[in-house]
Amino acid sequence: MASDELTLLPVPRLSALIERREVSPVEVTEAYLRRIDETEPRLNAFITRMDDQALASARQAEAEVIRGGYRGPFHGVPVGLKDLFRTKGVRTTSGSAIDREFVPDEDSAVAERFAAAGAVVVGKLHMTEMAFDGTSLNRHYGPARNPWDPERMAGGSSSGSGVAVAARQAALTVGTDTGGSVRVPAALCGVTGLKPTFGLISRYGATPLSWSMDHVGPLSRSVLDSALALNALAGHDSRDPASLRVAPRDYTNGLERGAEGAAGTRVGVVESFGWDLTEPGVRAAFEAAMTQLRTLGADAKPAATPDLALVNAAGSVVQTAEAAALHRERVLSRGREMDQAIRRRIESGLFIPAEAYLHAQRVRAMLRRELLSTLEEVDILASPTTAIAAPRLDQQRVTIQGREVHIREGLLRITRVFSAVGLPAISVPCGFTEDVLPVGLQLVGKPLSEPLLLRVAHAYQVSTEWHTRFPDV
Amino acid sequence: MASDELTLLPVPRLSALIERREVSPVEVTEAYLRRIDETEPRLNAFITRMDDQALASARQAEAEVIRGGYRGPFHGVPVGLKDLFRTKGVRTTSGSAIDREFVPDEDSAVAERFAAAGAVVVGKLHMTEMAFDGTSLNRHYGPARNPWDPERMAGGSSSGSGVAVAARQAALTVGTDTGGSVRVPAALCGVTGLKPTFGLISRYGATPLSWSMDHVGPLSRSVLDSALALNALAGHDSRDPASLRVAPRDYTNGLERGAEGAAGTRVGVVESFGWDLTEPGVRAAFEAAMTQLRTLGADAKPAATPDLALVNAAGSVVQTAEAAALHRERVLSRGREMDQAIRRRIESGLFIPAEAYLHAQRVRAMLRRELLSTLEEVDILASPTTAIAAPRLDQQRVTIQGREVHIREGLLRITRVFSAVGLPAISVPCGFTEDVLPVGLQLVGKPLSEPLLLRVAHAYQVSTEWHTRFPDV
Repeated sequence: MASDELTLLPVPRLSALIERREVSPVEVTEAYLRRIDETEPRLNAFITRMDDQALASARQAEAEVIRGGYRGPFHGVPVGLKDLFRTKGVRTTSGSAIDREFVPDEDSAVAERFAAAGAVVVGKLHMTEMAFDGTSLNRHYGPARNPWDPERMAGGSSSGSGVAVAARQAALTVGTDTGGSVRVPAALCGVTGLKPTFGLISRYGATPLSWSMDHVGPLSRSVLDSALALNALAGHDSRDPASLRVAPRDYTNGLERGAEGAAGTRVGVVESFGWDLTEPGVRAAFEAAMTQLRTLGADAKPAATPDLALVNAAGSVVQTAEAAALHRERVLSRGREMDQAIRRRIESGLFIPAEAYLHAQRVRAMLRRELLSTLEEVDILASPTTAIAAPRLDQQRVTIQGREVHIREGLLRITRVFSAVGLPAISVPCGFTEDVLPVGLQLVGKPLSEPLLLRVAHAYQVSTEWHTRFPDV
Repeated sequence: MASDELTLLPVPRLSALIERREVSPVEVTEAYLRRIDETEPRLNAFITRMDDQALASARQAEAEVIRGGYRGPFHGVPVGLKDLFRTKGVRTTSGSAIDREFVPDEDSAVAERFAAAGAVVVGKLHMTEMAFDGTSLNRHYGPARNPWDPERMAGGSSSGSGVAVAARQAALTVGTDTGGSVRVPAALCGVTGLKPTFGLISRYGATPLSWSMDHVGPLSRSVLDSALALNALAGHDSRDPASLRVAPRDYTNGLERGAEGAAGTRVGVVESFGWDLTEPGVRAAFEAAMTQLRTLGADAKPAATPDLALVNAAGSVVQTAEAAALHRERVLSRGREMDQAIRRRIESGLFIPAEAYLHAQRVRAMLRRELLSTLEEVDILASPTTAIAAPRLDQQRVTIQGREVHIREGLLRITRVFSAVGLPAISVPCGFTEDVLPVGLQLVGKPLSEPLLLRVAHAYQVSTEWHTRFPDV
């Protein structure tokens, strides 16, 4: 098999070849490293490449497989990590200049679990500074570029995690999502991004932005790959106080139903995020996706949802106050070394009164209850992932139906709501705008309803071809 | 049996007589109402008496028992509720003038559970305004007076709950404890007060002061009565978000060991709250209690505890910020109708930055972990409940070993720590000062270790006579 073809294979096919010793993890890793060599100059998805470590891991994975050892679907499979997951002996910058030389002496939970699964980490991926921005700009490490149009943003904050999957620089990546930071780059780069239920994947060793809203989740080429990642990464970890005690399960269960898996599902179409502030091309792709779900036997109709603008505002207050509490020392003592816009955004959190913070937390709890009662009427909520497709790298505002909208709101407005309430949410590619920029479909479920959510997303995905298109980079 | 004798009986003896139909709940209730008539003018333990409702409940309890129905140890037993537990159709003032005419249309969880247990509620008990004060002063309803010396404070904020038990106006009462509001009046009035593990008793329908620190707990004449109250009141309630899912258990189990129940217990003596700021009479009583525990076979020795002043400060920040968030509207729109000192204390919370609040929450979590690791070395922690005995009603400061201390700190300094970390804590009478004012012994356990905590406290109690003395009112 030609080197470039190896990077086209989905995780289960690749690992089947590895298990049967038809390809070696070393070959696979070399193919990916070549792919990174070729594409990285145009994309800037990596902050730190780990070629030597990756080849060493690949050789170890190869030796194991030769001895008959096979750890499962990630054995010998090249993956990438957002550069806020601590990696023992490899610098972890969190996208900041201050941590340019920070080399952790232990692994994050995600790195540990991938190591246990036999995965090969090829590098630490681009992110916005301290994960506090939904673009893909970074003053210290340059912008990550969208593989569909390198003059456009890749979304953030897990920017490189989206780019690397879309550009086949890694088979799968892991990011974090506080207001949409997994789903937004997934949508803008045309890949699948899963933010699981709050607490399902341990955040231990991941640089925090907001205790009560940070989630860890995979970005992948398909829903099936994300389900496999959840199998490898989910599980209780006492080192993360928010970590849930959930019994292990196989998240691929039910996916064997293929396109049948959406039949009978009650899909509630979320409208209260505001179609008037959403790009028409995004809306058209979303509506086609609803038609497709109906074709698959789902019952899709408008859902009564609470005031999402209020949840959004509450989530923003909580995120900013918690970021200020976490990074107070950093902004006060070394603020001049930061991107000044991000510094100011964190500093502004120092002026939020506890009373406002607590009010915001109550609003979150109240609207969570309201959303849970909506989710008694329907099984899944659906919306576009973002209100806009990828903006240009120099763009600050976008005009939608005559109104100017800051791109940050266009990018994060619809996702942040579901971070604030901790519900599982997935973004899958659902079409392109006229400019050939990917559009994401967001599906949201009840707490711990990942099996249903993945089954419906998978049914949609296998009945469409959006996820099989790769950008020409 | 003479009327006054009925009010002397502990709960299990009283309910045994009721079950065997040797006394009627109506007789018992009439005896208690007479006792209230006699003593209330000197004590002011009640904000609202409920004579008519109590007699109606008593008649119903009597009718049930005549038909052979017996609900358990509280069947027909007169109890009192702090006036922040909502009672359907009976005003619930929370100690404020603003709510002087507030009549709830539903019961609090505590009122519901007592009703289910057949208890007879004789009235709504005195408290400091909004429960935000550890004295027993109340500008609107007058001070609650200590039965051991009516010119002295009864402690607070559950002031009337302490007075009513000590003065035999009710067989048992229920209060709330945010910084010590059950344990402090228990200590100052010479009765038993239990603050269970955070979340063990539902707070539904109780006026909140601080979500993350409010606890509900009984005040009683003995540890055994408190265990019975826990049987009646503990249990999951989805209407209180902090309510724990704990299987029902019989909290009297183990108490049958009597004075043997403390043998082999490792008791860690807490010292880091500061003996230099503690009255010598309190210290002497506490040290005699440690000697007694050793006589019972406990191994009592100094425990290494974290910086309690820091937990105390963190607890105070959290409580004030949460109170401000809860009562913002009240202080801003109707502040002039409040006690101005309490208004100012709540308003000050509006200026606490979220960052400081979150820092305080982290300090709490950190010191909770430290205390839990201390509680790996010992089974129980012991300290005095308060650093001072009951102050005079007009007293603001007390001089201890040459240093002036505000009475609020003298009253709450040692208890607030254990509210902040959510651990179960009990105060039992352990002696008197030279002025014949009661002193409380505080015992603290691991989360959900109530069975052990009650067993050790009971062993101490049945081997001493402090709890059998009644003030002469």
